[in-house]
Amino acid sequence: MGMSISDYLIFRLQQMGVQDFFGLPGDYNFDIIKSVENNPNTNWIGCTNELNAGYAADGYARIKGFGAIITTFGVGELSAINAIAGSASEFVPVVKIVGAPKTKLIKNNILIHHNLNKPDYYAFMKAYSNIVETTAFLTKENAKDEIDRVLDILTKEKKPVYIALPMDICNEIIDNKYQKAEQKSDENNFKKALNKALELINNSKNPAILADIMIKRFHAKEEFYELLKNSNYPCATLLMGKDLICDDESLNFSGTYVGKFGNKKAYECINNSDCTIFIGTVISDINTQGFDLKFNPDDYINIQGNYCTIQNITYKNVLMKDILKELADKITNKNPKKTGYDYFYSDVSASDKVSMEYFFKKLQDFIEEGDNLVVETGIVNLALAKLKIKKNVSVNNQVLWGSIGWATGATLGVAMADKDARTILVTGEGSHQLSAVEISTMMRNNLKPVIFVINNKGYTIERILCDDPMDKFNEIAKWDYSKLPYVFGENVYCASVNGCDELDKTLKIVKEEQKNKMCYIELNLDMFDLPELAKKAIAGSKLEKYSL
Amino acid sequence: MGMSISDYLIFRLQQMGVQDFFGLPGDYNFDIIKSVENNPNTNWIGCTNELNAGYAADGYARIKGFGAIITTFGVGELSAINAIAGSASEFVPVVKIVGAPKTKLIKNNILIHHNLNKPDYYAFMKAYSNIVETTAFLTKENAKDEIDRVLDILTKEKKPVYIALPMDICNEIIDNKYQKAEQKSDENNFKKALNKALELINNSKNPAILADIMIKRFHAKEEFYELLKNSNYPCATLLMGKDLICDDESLNFSGTYVGKFGNKKAYECINNSDCTIFIGTVISDINTQGFDLKFNPDDYINIQGNYCTIQNITYKNVLMKDILKELADKITNKNPKKTGYDYFYSDVSASDKVSMEYFFKKLQDFIEEGDNLVVETGIVNLALAKLKIKKNVSVNNQVLWGSIGWATGATLGVAMADKDARTILVTGEGSHQLSAVEISTMMRNNLKPVIFVINNKGYTIERILCDDPMDKFNEIAKWDYSKLPYVFGENVYCASVNGCDELDKTLKIVKEEQKNKMCYIELNLDMFDLPELAKKAIAGSKLEKYSL
Repeated sequence: MGMSISDYLIFRLQQMGVQDFFGLPGDYNFDIIKSVENNPNTNWIGCTNELNAGYAADGYARIKGFGAIITTFGVGELSAINAIAGSASEFVPVVKIVGAPKTKLIKNNILIHHNLNKPDYYAFMKAYSNIVETTAFLTKENAKDEIDRVLDILTKEKKPVYIALPMDICNEIIDNKYQKAEQKSDENNFKKALNKALELINNSKNPAILADIMIKRFHAKEEFYELLKNSNYPCATLLMGKDLICDDESLNFSGTYVGKFGNKKAYECINNSDCTIFIGTVISDINTQGFDLKFNPDDYINIQGNYCTIQNITYKNVLMKDILKELADKITNKNPKKTGYDYFYSDVSASDKVSMEYFFKKLQDFIEEGDNLVVETGIVNLALAKLKIKKNVSVNNQVLWGSIGWATGATLGVAMADKDARTILVTGEGSHQLSAVEISTMMRNNLKPVIFVINNKGYTIERILCDDPMDKFNEIAKWDYSKLPYVFGENVYCASVNGCDELDKTLKIVKEEQKNKMCYIELNLDMFDLPELAKKAIAGSKLEKYSL
Repeated sequence: MGMSISDYLIFRLQQMGVQDFFGLPGDYNFDIIKSVENNPNTNWIGCTNELNAGYAADGYARIKGFGAIITTFGVGELSAINAIAGSASEFVPVVKIVGAPKTKLIKNNILIHHNLNKPDYYAFMKAYSNIVETTAFLTKENAKDEIDRVLDILTKEKKPVYIALPMDICNEIIDNKYQKAEQKSDENNFKKALNKALELINNSKNPAILADIMIKRFHAKEEFYELLKNSNYPCATLLMGKDLICDDESLNFSGTYVGKFGNKKAYECINNSDCTIFIGTVISDINTQGFDLKFNPDDYINIQGNYCTIQNITYKNVLMKDILKELADKITNKNPKKTGYDYFYSDVSASDKVSMEYFFKKLQDFIEEGDNLVVETGIVNLALAKLKIKKNVSVNNQVLWGSIGWATGATLGVAMADKDARTILVTGEGSHQLSAVEISTMMRNNLKPVIFVINNKGYTIERILCDDPMDKFNEIAKWDYSKLPYVFGENVYCASVNGCDELDKTLKIVKEEQKNKMCYIELNLDMFDLPELAKKAIAGSKLEKYSL
């Protein structure tokens, strides 16, 4: 049985769980989009621009496992490259599909629109090759093999791939049989790694676990929980792995790790351990508050998606799933008691003016089991550290790549990927401005996210990072945010909130309104209203200096 | 005398005429922006996102000769790459400045935010190297030489360059003396090229000139006019060079060339010539309506910015300015009579519903001497072909790169570059959606462009290019456009126009209102209302088939 090249590409992705394809049409990608429209199980989601479409595909993949964006050649694909780089940085498996000009023009290097003046049909793929895991420029001859190859890599590496498909070969027929990518641990390496890890762990006094996002990306949550349950080791999560452990008393959770200014229990259990087991961690400056994390590279265990590093030796092709399962089984020195967990929003007093701490306390109550939370880069991600979350809540953020504007675009993808659940966006207004119009696509598709826009009058995180907090370059255009959704439609609930009482009332209304429409809430905070962590970790001395 | 590295970079650009720097702040570029703020002759223009900032820098450079955009590392720079590729494609000299992390982190390849998971501090520069003319990653040691080198290339090649500046070396002191880039024709090549060109021209019966954008880019307008005046050869312009010849009866202008369905006089004078002189042309599919342009590569003359090709032989380092001047002087077979010029909007009858042809006729009257016009890609660029323009009007479009959304962003740059003149944007609403929020930056800076948003209910040019004009993927979100500016402020005149009478009245109001505020006019056109050229060249048979 055969299938057209573009039908096959869409079919393969649909089989992997991609039902919604984000992007914009252009005269080189019509037939690819037609394949999306013609497949009864897939939908085309036109976005307002390609960067936002890329963010949406990224958000979608964070929920559904895979995502895809389709753009035109040159102009379209380059606009999305930052989103794809974010997916690469944070292991979000997104396929970047590009409709390219006709093969004949490529072969003869003829100058037509969307090319450089001195035409180069491969220049943009070459640009992408610095970002993605692999690229393919399809021809009639290589299409079947190349599609299979790049989708295998996507599946195994969890990183974005790039496929360019010339418009004239979309309808060429290729074989549609394929083998699903399967990945196994290398037996020899696996045994060595397992034995070494067991030796270290079983001989240690107080092992502890630092868990992070790659557990989700490499679908090893079950095995991870098994290890936690069987060992009862204290476990802290990093900010990107915020949702790995929800409010579950059966696990020995010590909360989110954010360095010494944050969660004391997590800080101590990780830094005082004589054997820290890192599972799926991404260690960078932000989630450790400036690398405030003690570990000895010579004796720690680092378990990643498809390799382990133990005592500075790397064992390749050792799958996280496999080694966690065996460790859960074979660990002998189990931990007798729970560390406990007290780093969350408890009492915050109400005042005339709504504050970041008050809002997050209320958000903590507002969130229900099964909700999807999307949190933007900046101050709000620091406030997130202390949030306690209920079961089956997904928390999506971009702590490493940190592209402002990502969260609003990603909310489209998250809400589309999980229409039965509530999607809640928390964004600063500075970040929101970069991609705010994408709420138009949410409304157009009858999605009903709850959007909180924290208006603190400029780029507050930059104010506290730069020399002079009042420097003009951190000011932004003043928008009347609650007017914005009405440009796109009427089926929306909007509010602009100043006081704590007002917030309480608004949240009650939102709880009802959200069932039928998007809710878009602006929160007017003081410019230097900061969550506790930001005050202690970054801003303390500066705010005093400027008497802010 | 010395100067800090970032001060020197900004100082050099200011000396080249760049007063306004577009971009967004980020924690790696604070000191570069401080250098802009501290220089009494330069201003920081914060934008809503980096792509729009890139478009603005491009628009600015089209008017002022050079432009600059400053972003942060990774996230910021990649978001702007499509804009810079557009500048590269169309020879718009823009400097892409990136604030990078500290040298020590780069040297030790430490993972911090805005990097790939496996850190690579050069990955994004490598991506850019496929787009720009040259790149530089500054160090304390190479900064002075590298800044001078890339600005020389920018000046000579008129193409974008990329500079990354690590945050910790911004304040290092370097020498601030420099030599201005000077470019001379190679004497030997120049003589050969000139003699060959004169031989061909002086022996031809009916020479004709096809003139285009590179005459503007390489600042050779004066020499070009001299040649036209002295020779009296009939001259047609291409769409990107639309403003080269305004309504000037002293020149033998035969109008804008757009293939056989457009301007008959231009078509004939160019295609019937036995010696066509191409000056600064960019020949692609769109401006020739599918390469509908006859010329024999073996005997035509192609004069470009810094080289000539004559009878298939290329003479390098021959400057356009120099050869045009000599040709003007030495041509002997002058043309006795004028071809005449009749391709412009003359009579268009009014009707209940405003049409593209009616609007462009009225726009032709509305435009005044010295205005700056920015025209978006798509249908409106085809309508532009027939527009007659008054003296000193600049027409800015992106016919080759054709990135939808460019025009709205570029309007910010054009209006900022020429505050004393009026700036008029004509955009389709489909393109406008990609970058519409940038009108916020225009309003914030008290710019007063006149913006015409042509609402034809979707991507009309794609409807007429794809198989099924009513395919859903060419639909876009329905916006209430005239509400949008009020999200950003009150000092704006907005209208939504349906009928021809209404347009007439609105234009009268705009003429007054525009003195004090931005004017933002939505024009509601029928979905398949097309300018004559689009009907004849693309849509004819299809519209019949679908009875549209």
